[in-house]
Amino acid sequence: MNRCFTVLFLLAQFILVSSRAQTGAIRRIDPTNWWVGMKNQTLQLMVYGPQAGSMTYTITYPGVRLLKTHKAENPDFAFLDLSISPAAKPGQFQVVGKNGSQTVSRPYELKPRTSGPKAQGVSSADFIYLIMPDRFANGDPSNDAFPDMLDTKADRSIPHLRHGGDLQGITNHLDYLQELGVTAIWMTPVLVNDETLKQEAPDRMQAGYHGYHFTDHYQIDKRFGGNEGYRQFAQTLHRRGMKLVQDAVYNHVSDDHWLYKNQPFKDWFNQWPGYTGSSHKDQPLYDPYASAADRKRLLDGWFTPFLPDLNLRNPFLATYLIQHAIWCTEQFSLDAWRVDTYKYNDLNFLNRCNQTLLTEFPKLHIFGESWVGSPVAQAFFVKNKIDQPFKSNQPGGLDFVLYDATNAALREEFGWDTGVNRFYQALTTDGLYTDPQKLVTFLENHDTDRFLSVIGDDLAKYKMGVTWLLTTRGIPSWYYGTEVLMKNTKNPSDAEVRRDFPGGFPGDKEDKFTAAGRSKRENEAFDFVKKLANYRKNTPVLQSGKLMQYVPQLGTYVYFRYDNAKTVMVATNSTDQEIALDTKRFAERMTGFTRAKNVLTDETISGLSLIKLPPKTAVVLELSR
Amino acid sequence: MNRCFTVLFLLAQFILVSSRAQTGAIRRIDPTNWWVGMKNQTLQLMVYGPQAGSMTYTITYPGVRLLKTHKAENPDFAFLDLSISPAAKPGQFQVVGKNGSQTVSRPYELKPRTSGPKAQGVSSADFIYLIMPDRFANGDPSNDAFPDMLDTKADRSIPHLRHGGDLQGITNHLDYLQELGVTAIWMTPVLVNDETLKQEAPDRMQAGYHGYHFTDHYQIDKRFGGNEGYRQFAQTLHRRGMKLVQDAVYNHVSDDHWLYKNQPFKDWFNQWPGYTGSSHKDQPLYDPYASAADRKRLLDGWFTPFLPDLNLRNPFLATYLIQHAIWCTEQFSLDAWRVDTYKYNDLNFLNRCNQTLLTEFPKLHIFGESWVGSPVAQAFFVKNKIDQPFKSNQPGGLDFVLYDATNAALREEFGWDTGVNRFYQALTTDGLYTDPQKLVTFLENHDTDRFLSVIGDDLAKYKMGVTWLLTTRGIPSWYYGTEVLMKNTKNPSDAEVRRDFPGGFPGDKEDKFTAAGRSKRENEAFDFVKKLANYRKNTPVLQSGKLMQYVPQLGTYVYFRYDNAKTVMVATNSTDQEIALDTKRFAERMTGFTRAKNVLTDETISGLSLIKLPPKTAVVLELSR
Repeated sequence: MNRCFTVLFLLAQFILVSSRAQTGAIRRIDPTNWWVGMKNQTLQLMVYGPQAGSMTYTITYPGVRLLKTHKAENPDFAFLDLSISPAAKPGQFQVVGKNGSQTVSRPYELKPRTSGPKAQGVSSADFIYLIMPDRFANGDPSNDAFPDMLDTKADRSIPHLRHGGDLQGITNHLDYLQELGVTAIWMTPVLVNDETLKQEAPDRMQAGYHGYHFTDHYQIDKRFGGNEGYRQFAQTLHRRGMKLVQDAVYNHVSDDHWLYKNQPFKDWFNQWPGYTGSSHKDQPLYDPYASAADRKRLLDGWFTPFLPDLNLRNPFLATYLIQHAIWCTEQFSLDAWRVDTYKYNDLNFLNRCNQTLLTEFPKLHIFGESWVGSPVAQAFFVKNKIDQPFKSNQPGGLDFVLYDATNAALREEFGWDTGVNRFYQALTTDGLYTDPQKLVTFLENHDTDRFLSVIGDDLAKYKMGVTWLLTTRGIPSWYYGTEVLMKNTKNPSDAEVRRDFPGGFPGDKEDKFTAAGRSKRENEAFDFVKKLANYRKNTPVLQSGKLMQYVPQLGTYVYFRYDNAKTVMVATNSTDQEIALDTKRFAERMTGFTRAKNVLTDETISGLSLIKLPPKTAVVLELSR
Repeated sequence: MNRCFTVLFLLAQFILVSSRAQTGAIRRIDPTNWWVGMKNQTLQLMVYGPQAGSMTYTITYPGVRLLKTHKAENPDFAFLDLSISPAAKPGQFQVVGKNGSQTVSRPYELKPRTSGPKAQGVSSADFIYLIMPDRFANGDPSNDAFPDMLDTKADRSIPHLRHGGDLQGITNHLDYLQELGVTAIWMTPVLVNDETLKQEAPDRMQAGYHGYHFTDHYQIDKRFGGNEGYRQFAQTLHRRGMKLVQDAVYNHVSDDHWLYKNQPFKDWFNQWPGYTGSSHKDQPLYDPYASAADRKRLLDGWFTPFLPDLNLRNPFLATYLIQHAIWCTEQFSLDAWRVDTYKYNDLNFLNRCNQTLLTEFPKLHIFGESWVGSPVAQAFFVKNKIDQPFKSNQPGGLDFVLYDATNAALREEFGWDTGVNRFYQALTTDGLYTDPQKLVTFLENHDTDRFLSVIGDDLAKYKMGVTWLLTTRGIPSWYYGTEVLMKNTKNPSDAEVRRDFPGGFPGDKEDKFTAAGRSKRENEAFDFVKKLANYRKNTPVLQSGKLMQYVPQLGTYVYFRYDNAKTVMVATNSTDQEIALDTKRFAERMTGFTRAKNVLTDETISGLSLIKLPPKTAVVLELSR
């Protein structure tokens, strides 16, 4: 099956290469197809081919009108504004271009809308699992490397090269993930990164194994499974009741992207007199005293010398990227978008992109990566309650503030502002967000030191952190492998926190996907996460119940999730000593309850006036009368 | 003059004591007088005397109506609601109480409105000087101590007793303060603290020398100069074009306050089953997940065992305190209020109090002490741009966020988030405040370690901090003595940072009020502050000009104050090396300027493309074409 698909793919490539050789043809139209029956009835086609900009175009198809043709600065591009009426039927038409006696054409398909679940969103009822597909599991060794790509190698012995993981590998382990309690998969990007190795550091040539270096927006990397493999992957997830999150990158592309090599306009990319990196400083976006120069440096500075920075103020580029997001959502039946490097993008572009997606797919969730250090900054990038000149319409975001706080809470001793106070205090500023429940929470990700290493390989702290993640507000997410105690820091490089999942690759001596392959300690961790994630999955109050938290005292931190049906108490003792917690302070939430079930140990507790909290433990108690 | 005043005062005391002995009399009416022609035409009199609550009251005076009499729980109190029509004339009437055959009465005066400057507010054009009057200068040794007070001692050899400083002492040094550039005086409270020594720490009995332990709202402490001395002090300031800020305490009083010893209602104070201190944790006020118990603990918990916590939800108490604030403003011609322990007070009381004051005195400024650690918390307590359930109407506040940032900026090495980045970043969240120009900025106060000690007694850092304070946004304030390099930490006690100003007290061997009495280094500091404070005073752009700041780079931090008339550039080099600052990045503010005057050295700089910044220096440059 997979081999057959590969042959077909190579054949398609051959046809494409042949068509490129033909002078005067339309070589490409993006989006590569569209649909009838979309809410947005406009579509802008990018037409690419020799002298495409000099042609006069016609389209003859019931319900489709060519409204306007735009020339680009590059003569090989034209942009065609189409309207597609609600009455248009699925089918194919020719895009015909004429220049004097020369006529070129290329078929274009309007498909029926994709059936099945789609754009369901992710919510606080979900548990998202973040996978770097090259590093999780290799389900199809035949697609590890291709001689017709710029990077032809897969070599697991070298941390910075591709290792061969793919969508089939993930598919093979969906039972494992569902056992753990996972309900949604977010992968680092799967769009093709057909590029040469890049100088990621003075001593390091690196492949785009992580996926963030797009070279063509309309191809899923064939080393992961290609467009058809991805479509099927989404269907498989949806059949299982799982969801799919795609990782978007609007800020930059690889310098091997075909549109960097063939730029429609001079301002398709942000250009500087000499190489100019981004300042990475988000403050100028919301600082009332900021200079235009500092905003420009953040937004238009390049991420690295080999990642050309897209100029999102170019209206054709903006439409190109937004239509691509719509196209992916419909084509692959996505449920949500994670947006990479959110803070580096033109703010008006982001709002237009978000709004267009949400108008077409109202339940879709969008959560961007704004790696910032304060709740004021974080709120700026999502829907918020601050009256300021720019208002973001992003429904969610990755919660870096709570991430920082969680790690600090577990690293530090308890003090006036330290230890568990960090976690408590981070939540106290939630009033800045329109809906903090839509923030995606996490203990770590592919760009950070791994959680277990941050907390000193301490399983007791691990359990406290996991308990908070899975019982507080927000949409919890999880980085692959932490359930089997994968650890490491980014020293000497990112690749250390992106190691292969043991058991995912042919020839692996260990298989952590099975209980038998895991050590006792690894099973203890896995079972802990599994227990709590599944409890959360089956306990609506932990998903959508209200939260009440109490000022930490003497190293303890207590909060409740509650609704009319149920009250769950989470009580953390962060100290090294057992504590008998006097519950009088919590009367507002505990009055009437006399017993409890310890969700993690299944013990029953009767008499709640004093609750025994073992050292370095967060207990989860379901209260009853 | 002063001695005469003292005699008069003692006579008044004698009369008061005599009246207390008389059964059935009205011993006291608060406010002690009122005015005709106030905007607010209502007045609530607290009438105190034996069985005052059982009387039927009448008042006969044109334009004055007794609307209602309220009984208190304590039979010795009655509260009389009066309306005073705009037509009422100044004069005196009798408050007459009858109970069967018994008739009592007490005269009450309606004065004409106080003339002269009043309620002018303080603004970013001012420079506020904070004085602890007991510790600044003793201008009248005859009022240092009184045998009829609960604390009869003044002893400069003991840090925690009274030292004898007074209003006359301050008056004697107003030339000094005006030379420095000071335009407004804020003193720690001057209301009488007629109390026993208090156990401030296990090893420390302490006098209320700092003034925060009120025992009678309607007396200015006679050890400072009494009511008449204070009234004259305000007039003296106003004659000099200076302003007066009073320090309010709404949260608590001394347990020697006459209304603690005689409580009108059982709920005049917040009562607990056993002593319960405040949590001091402000988060429950804005945390969307807070419990009522945590809010109560913060607000109703006591500050110390000897400072009974006022229950500001008692409507009679609330009116009593608000009328007192109005009374002081009118009586003493105050220009602004600083509010102590702002975050510990009932929020609705605070808003009502602020609104009543601002309705009566629209230009008045009010700035509370909310000692908090984040801009979100700080914004909560002032007028802000966050859409949250409680909206504060406080126009200003002490800027603890910038205070923290300034000290950290000077203590730390430059790094991604450290050193001068602290100061820069603190300002970037100003979008939370409705008007950040109304925040009162400071380097230290009477409750903190002294600035010079925090920064390691480093005069270069001192000058950088002073330069930021006097050139950035906000209303700068200054703690007495720092201009002559007074230093110290709070170890072993607060008294270390509240030492006597050298030269302010009879017999002082040194006199730092004069250039001759100051060391070379002290004169260098004094002259620096004087130069910059006077430059600010005469340079409107530093007061009300716009601010533009740039992302710090390589240990430098650059900002501009600008308006149509003038541009001032402040460039800090926080490193140990001289830096030639390339000004290309600052084109938005510097284009067209070719020369500059260094405000601190009076040097002229021609050619601005590279600016030489000495190590650890903030230069202030007035740009010209």
